[in-house]
Amino acid sequence: MKTVVIGSTGYGGVELIRLLENHPQARIGALVSSSQPREPLKAVYPHLSHMEETLEELDPDRLCEAGDVVFFATPPGVSSQWAPRFAERGKVCIDLSGDFRLTDDAYRRWYGREPASADWLERAVYGLSEWYAEQIRSATLISNPGCYPTASLLALIPLLRERAIDPDTIVIDAKSGVSGAGRGLKLNALFCEVNENLRPYRVDAHQHTPEIERYASEAWGRPVRVTFIPHLVPMNRGILITLTARAAEGWTRRRLEEMYRGIYQSAPFVRIRSENDWPGTKQVQGSNYCDLAVHLDERTGRVIVMSVIDNLVKGAAGQAVQNLNLRMGWDETAGLEGLPLYP
Amino acid sequence: MKTVVIGSTGYGGVELIRLLENHPQARIGALVSSSQPREPLKAVYPHLSHMEETLEELDPDRLCEAGDVVFFATPPGVSSQWAPRFAERGKVCIDLSGDFRLTDDAYRRWYGREPASADWLERAVYGLSEWYAEQIRSATLISNPGCYPTASLLALIPLLRERAIDPDTIVIDAKSGVSGAGRGLKLNALFCEVNENLRPYRVDAHQHTPEIERYASEAWGRPVRVTFIPHLVPMNRGILITLTARAAEGWTRRRLEEMYRGIYQSAPFVRIRSENDWPGTKQVQGSNYCDLAVHLDERTGRVIVMSVIDNLVKGAAGQAVQNLNLRMGWDETAGLEGLPLYP
Amino acid sequence: MKTVVIGSTGYGGVELIRLLENHPQARIGALVSSSQPREPLKAVYPHLSHMEETLEELDPDRLCEAGDVVFFATPPGVSSQWAPRFAERGKVCIDLSGDFRLTDDAYRRWYGREPASADWLERAVYGLSEWYAEQIRSATLISNPGCYPTASLLALIPLLRERAIDPDTIVIDAKSGVSGAGRGLKLNALFCEVNENLRPYRVDAHQHTPEIERYASEAWGRPVRVTFIPHLVPMNRGILITLTARAAEGWTRRRLEEMYRGIYQSAPFVRIRSENDWPGTKQVQGSNYCDLAVHLDERTGRVIVMSVIDNLVKGAAGQAVQNLNLRMGWDETAGLEGLPLYP
Amino acid sequence: MKTVVIGSTGYGGVELIRLLENHPQARIGALVSSSQPREPLKAVYPHLSHMEETLEELDPDRLCEAGDVVFFATPPGVSSQWAPRFAERGKVCIDLSGDFRLTDDAYRRWYGREPASADWLERAVYGLSEWYAEQIRSATLISNPGCYPTASLLALIPLLRERAIDPDTIVIDAKSGVSGAGRGLKLNALFCEVNENLRPYRVDAHQHTPEIERYASEAWGRPVRVTFIPHLVPMNRGILITLTARAAEGWTRRRLEEMYRGIYQSAPFVRIRSENDWPGTKQVQGSNYCDLAVHLDERTGRVIVMSVIDNLVKGAAGQAVQNLNLRMGWDETAGLEGLPLYP
Repeated sequence: MKTVVIGSTGYGGVELIRLLENHPQARIGALVSSSQPREPLKAVYPHLSHMEETLEELDPDRLCEAGDVVFFATPPGVSSQWAPRFAERGKVCIDLSGDFRLTDDAYRRWYGREPASADWLERAVYGLSEWYAEQIRSATLISNPGCYPTASLLALIPLLRERAIDPDTIVIDAKSGVSGAGRGLKLNALFCEVNENLRPYRVDAHQHTPEIERYASEAWGRPVRVTFIPHLVPMNRGILITLTARAAEGWTRRRLEEMYRGIYQSAPFVRIRSENDWPGTKQVQGSNYCDLAVHLDERTGRVIVMSVIDNLVKGAAGQAVQNLNLRMGWDETAGLEGLPLYP
Repeated sequence: MKTVVIGSTGYGGVELIRLLENHPQARIGALVSSSQPREPLKAVYPHLSHMEETLEELDPDRLCEAGDVVFFATPPGVSSQWAPRFAERGKVCIDLSGDFRLTDDAYRRWYGREPASADWLERAVYGLSEWYAEQIRSATLISNPGCYPTASLLALIPLLRERAIDPDTIVIDAKSGVSGAGRGLKLNALFCEVNENLRPYRVDAHQHTPEIERYASEAWGRPVRVTFIPHLVPMNRGILITLTARAAEGWTRRRLEEMYRGIYQSAPFVRIRSENDWPGTKQVQGSNYCDLAVHLDERTGRVIVMSVIDNLVKGAAGQAVQNLNLRMGWDETAGLEGLPLYP
Repeated sequence: MKTVVIGSTGYGGVELIRLLENHPQARIGALVSSSQPREPLKAVYPHLSHMEETLEELDPDRLCEAGDVVFFATPPGVSSQWAPRFAERGKVCIDLSGDFRLTDDAYRRWYGREPASADWLERAVYGLSEWYAEQIRSATLISNPGCYPTASLLALIPLLRERAIDPDTIVIDAKSGVSGAGRGLKLNALFCEVNENLRPYRVDAHQHTPEIERYASEAWGRPVRVTFIPHLVPMNRGILITLTARAAEGWTRRRLEEMYRGIYQSAPFVRIRSENDWPGTKQVQGSNYCDLAVHLDERTGRVIVMSVIDNLVKGAAGQAVQNLNLRMGWDETAGLEGLPLYP
Repeated sequence: MKTVVIGSTGYGGVELIRLLENHPQARIGALVSSSQPREPLKAVYPHLSHMEETLEELDPDRLCEAGDVVFFATPPGVSSQWAPRFAERGKVCIDLSGDFRLTDDAYRRWYGREPASADWLERAVYGLSEWYAEQIRSATLISNPGCYPTASLLALIPLLRERAIDPDTIVIDAKSGVSGAGRGLKLNALFCEVNENLRPYRVDAHQHTPEIERYASEAWGRPVRVTFIPHLVPMNRGILITLTARAAEGWTRRRLEEMYRGIYQSAPFVRIRSENDWPGTKQVQGSNYCDLAVHLDERTGRVIVMSVIDNLVKGAAGQAVQNLNLRMGWDETAGLEGLPLYP
């Protein structure tokens, strides 16, 4: 089965290449880069200097021949235009951008752009693999979740569905490595500005906020709002979210842990940690795992949940491959079995 | 004026040496190290290879001759025994450890040790310079605050005193560089374990929690409890705390900012940042500043405050020198005027 | 085919586990840890929290049943005692330590310990896969090279064999990430000591010096001495060696590059970089590649060669698996096909 | 005494601001930024949020009133045009760029630009404080050395003047933190590209090579060529150069160390380390020190010298202030007494 990657030169795109090259069934049919078409891949990424692929332009006819699945690892505003064209020609599209994750109003407000067509916004399936597998298996257009929403919702949906917390008290303190910001040239992404530094950014303004709220609301049954505060951490990869909310009556730490274990017992990539065993981001580095730990602070009556992922794997390319596996009926873990790289 | 540093070889101690060497009035009279007595300072710290001081044993008679102010940069359980002896001989003691920060019950519970004598626990003055300057000016024993409490309380006390938040809803998500953990040999402090890693630790168990609560309660007038969650960040220096709480009625972002500006207008080391100008830890690196930014998330009705310090300066040795200045009647900023080291 | 890993809890051991878990033919039969026997693996390495293996004691009878290949990822002095016992019972031994890399005299001098038995020192085959494949294919005891010698010799052997340099002028300036120092508790390995620091260590005293000289001498035909200067770099993984030597007459940069390309044309893990395309350590991170670049400084008549590897992969566990593949007659790249993790 | 800084927003410029603010005699009269004129300084550098200075345009009339000393912390090609104009109006100019460090031919070849006027190239004094103090004391235009040349020449000049090495065998393996590359937006300076990476750059092409050779030749008396190989290290600040050369007859390690101690005995910023006490870059962080260690590898007959500096202090702004002190007849260490920031 051949695949096409559009947006091959960003960090999400090159992570897709790493995972697809390692996949037992999928092959790379074409690599597209609008910014550097006709460049050899290895000129852009010398760590792939043994590979002979050349980057291509976004030519739909050519690409429809080159593969049956099209990944978009593109900035906002690209897949909203292009994915429908491929989907209408029978291609499965897996979009790693945010173009199909929000309702049109919310997209307009938070992304400051025109949304995709209402029809395809409707048809797109949210690719949070552990919760939407059924719909993913038959989807034409899979809207892969954002990195923060993946880590947040895997922690939050169980709490909301099981009525374990008061939904008006949710605070998500999120911390991310720098690769989440992409490979663009920005002052704030320079080594000297990031190294030995920790800083908040886009507080109360991050476009992943409404994405988390949309699917949290779906889990709760009524609108849920969260305080979402992202921070940039001096490391390449990894997201840790620290979620707090007032516990509902009758919950203990043990019951919370058992609840998570029960819900994710057949999820191959979610690992529930034991009491006082807090996850670090390095423990999932390079892998598709999401590690969750839960605690009940009895002094304050608050549930505390930690959730860690590799933002480029479970938070982007890995979950995209997991969704490919679900869609194709392959083993959900195909190509994703690698252990975390440690240290 | 001569000073004595007990615990000279930890990171707090060596930072004291840096600041005292730069001080216009204070001089170093003796450097004590129980672990490496009689070693030349430069053998322990080659960055001081031009200095000829030798580390000494903790000999009270000798030290009482060597200086009039005694700093303790020691592990728990040392100053509780020794500071009273120096204080009783007329020395001003400034304790950077936690031995005099809690009531005896709280100390027993959170430190798991026997507390200092009730008498001296009573007489010790809490050294949060901006709020306890009056008492510090005449104190014999100054109990310098912990690093997290310094960053947290400078953000929190104004909110509580001004009734700007609901005190039952306080969550403090705290992030620290690694130097806060000291120079001891621990697996979790190895470079390979910390680098490219972000992890929570001592969740619901950190001994700075009751210290924050004690002085938050004092500001509010009744007991206040906080959810306090510390994280370890792959950097040497710096603390960022992210505080959230439900806003009281009638507050706007602008009013919150003005409130902070008013309260700290004559505090030389507190800088209030403007709207959407979030502080990063590097912006105070090596300096005694605490930078504060406040926001009101109108969607959720929550106040968000960021507070950054250098954990070894304002969070330890710098505030100790600031307290020395207050106690001696010197300019509060003496020896602390250096700009942050950037980048 | 089942394998045994002795020394499972060091960084070399846990990297072997990562690679063996990903191997199409090899399986893990037993994991030995003398320091933490009977501990669950996941208690030592939470990034493997989904694995159920338990660490074992070094019990030869039990281990001889558990596997047919025994890896030693142990400190000096362990395999010299134990590997012969396994080898004599018909097991293939692959030793990642330095116990079988030197002659007995050199071992005594540079390691300060008693060497292995003369008989087994003789029978051990040096596991530099690209140069000793023939002997490895039938070896009983494979002495896997050190990390620095691997990077150095892949650069140096061609120069010496082809008489491209004056062997009296070799300087190897070597730089390594911190994982090469292992997981032991040492002051110099603490995050705060390493981060934002670059320092030389064991100058003129590193035990990899005689190892490089032994096999350099073999390539040249007569004794060769090198100036070898190791440095510690604030990063987890990666080695870069910068080799300089006076060029012999008649060599050009182009001829040097072609020489390397010719020699390594069928070596799957050696990649020759083009003119002015200098390799960075991250470009091989997590992979078994060695990237080489060569330059002729015409102003000074010196050859400059850069060589980068991941010290835990090609410099340790990866080359051990490569040697396993050669020894078993499997595809040389089995289990080692993963692309570098970038960024 | 008032000073003007032209090029205030680069890392060299902002380090000048830090040092001048801390100087007992010098004051800042004007801060110039061609890229961001009329911006408040604190908008560009929030770590200076308590300062009220505004950046200015390069207006010579205004600046000649604003100060008597003009620092240039500018890219190539600026000071060659502007410094003479200020010098001709009686201002002392201290140029941190490379515009006056080479002869015109060499400048053309290595910088690829037109050099400054022959007259001013002639009159400029090389600002390597320890070796050119006499000329600096009466200079109008001081050409501050590059960061690599400072670290290299402080190690190399003594060896050459004392005939301790064979000048045909000098190899300088240089390693620098990233701040040396400035604050410009380049792919290679992004955090994700630099972090966990070590890479050579501009091998055999770095413009500091001819600068080192020029002053090495002056020390030797005849032309000297060096192989100079720079590397980028994942840290903000710090340079380590590792210099090797064949020892001349009759030198021992001890004699070499004594030679260095003798030569630099009255140099306040050069510290000679003892046997086997190798300097790390962090040991000079934020300070104006240059730490030197020397070794004789008796196995190969090679002298090995390590030299570390903070590239922004002794390698740029600190040495500029040291030269200001020399020029003004102030204490050479004025404003530069701060201890290294450790850790």
